[in-house]
Amino acid sequence: MKAKKNSPIGVFDSGIGGLTVLKEINRVLPAEGTIYLGDTARVPYGSKSGDTVTRYSLEIAKFLVKQGIKLLVVACNTASAISIETIKKESPVPVIGVIDPGARAAIHASTAKRIGVIGTNTTIKSNTYLKAMKELDKGVHVFAMPCPLFVPLIEEGWIKGKIAVLIAKKYLRYFKDKKIDTLLLGCTHYPLLKPVLSEVMGDRITLVDSAIETGKEIKRVIKETGLERKSEIKPLRRFYVTDSPERFINVGERFLGQKIKNINKINVGG
Amino acid sequence: MKAKKNSPIGVFDSGIGGLTVLKEINRVLPAEGTIYLGDTARVPYGSKSGDTVTRYSLEIAKFLVKQGIKLLVVACNTASAISIETIKKESPVPVIGVIDPGARAAIHASTAKRIGVIGTNTTIKSNTYLKAMKELDKGVHVFAMPCPLFVPLIEEGWIKGKIAVLIAKKYLRYFKDKKIDTLLLGCTHYPLLKPVLSEVMGDRITLVDSAIETGKEIKRVIKETGLERKSEIKPLRRFYVTDSPERFINVGERFLGQKIKNINKINVGG
Repeated sequence: MKAKKNSPIGVFDSGIGGLTVLKEINRVLPAEGTIYLGDTARVPYGSKSGDTVTRYSLEIAKFLVKQGIKLLVVACNTASAISIETIKKESPVPVIGVIDPGARAAIHASTAKRIGVIGTNTTIKSNTYLKAMKELDKGVHVFAMPCPLFVPLIEEGWIKGKIAVLIAKKYLRYFKDKKIDTLLLGCTHYPLLKPVLSEVMGDRITLVDSAIETGKEIKRVIKETGLERKSEIKPLRRFYVTDSPERFINVGERFLGQKIKNINKINVGG
Repeated sequence: MKAKKNSPIGVFDSGIGGLTVLKEINRVLPAEGTIYLGDTARVPYGSKSGDTVTRYSLEIAKFLVKQGIKLLVVACNTASAISIETIKKESPVPVIGVIDPGARAAIHASTAKRIGVIGTNTTIKSNTYLKAMKELDKGVHVFAMPCPLFVPLIEEGWIKGKIAVLIAKKYLRYFKDKKIDTLLLGCTHYPLLKPVLSEVMGDRITLVDSAIETGKEIKRVIKETGLERKSEIKPLRRFYVTDSPERFINVGERFLGQKIKNINKINVGG
């Protein structure tokens, strides 16, 4: 299958979190068409085993490739941490995950070379961020902490107030004596909690958001590979979900910062 | 298919919550064999649409019937609220859900006939508890409130302390001026939060636990239909999960109050 310049970029996530990445793509590459798939019938991935996450990711990659995408973005940290090598092997189009851009940006941001990482259980347990950062800089010290309640808290919309602060304090207490100067948000949901995370961590800690870094990386790859779309026609913006679109639209519009139209429910892998 | 007296009882839930029902079955019917299936690869159900919950429930019911069960217990409030009629139509063995036993017990417990119900988004939105209670007593007043963060909170093990109390207070504030005397725990996870719920609601509110009521109902049906197991041999206790057994065992043993052995991972419906 030959990727065509005017084909859309495929973006997938377990649910709505990857919309923070889609938002960045739409911002830095406004002429590009995008197809977003949220696997809302099987969300979340972050508490499930690696085997299950890889099986789901391959089913979705296959579906998106069939739609004629020119590039596949794995906008889910858990799927990127666990399944990206397998997806790359199977995909006829280039694949970009969120781990490497995030790791590079964190290394770049840290002067102390002491970096904290937060994410889902499965992402943190995989040690993928640690490995990615060590490959870029052997001398870096990485401290990782899973924060499994952040995703449901954000999906509930409780992104400020006492409860959010107390939950953040309980998880982030771990970093108190680690002398980090940078905290990598290793989950595409977490940018929504930035104000609370800043409050708890203090001004001197830099928060690195992998959505922004992944947007930059995609722009670079699109330009380098000569895959830029050249057209005066308004680009396609399509959405697929595996469960009812209703809830996805409600919460998703808050993530994306714009209206979600052109959305369909599909079955992927039963 | 003819149900045999010595066949096991099949019990299913989206994940680990239904173990509170299994615990009751094992307690009141110690001679009965049980097969428990937790759909851990697709958990949770409570935030998903009715169509998706019914599709998943039917796949699991079919699997358990194939294992030769004599009775099917839907130990998940969301699946009971949404899919029980469809499951009953398709199942060759009797089906028992958790809604009717819970509704009956709540009606029985309330003298004021003013009852609160808490559950997942999908359970509460379905109005199934309201309908079940109105059928038993037209004059009853039912007030329902979804508490979507309770399940992840319980799965994280934060079942006491300041955060649990604050989250409970935020959801249960709704009942402040409703003059209820009974609160029905409409989710199989919630019994784990009983101490916090009692603290927040106060001593004068009766908490009704559908796990206990469903255990009684199953015992009644088993006796009435002459399906009691008569054997001196130790009964079978088997578990199936759709994702890795590791995490299920860790959290599940806390729910069940005993060791989980004899567990296998299976694929249901892709």
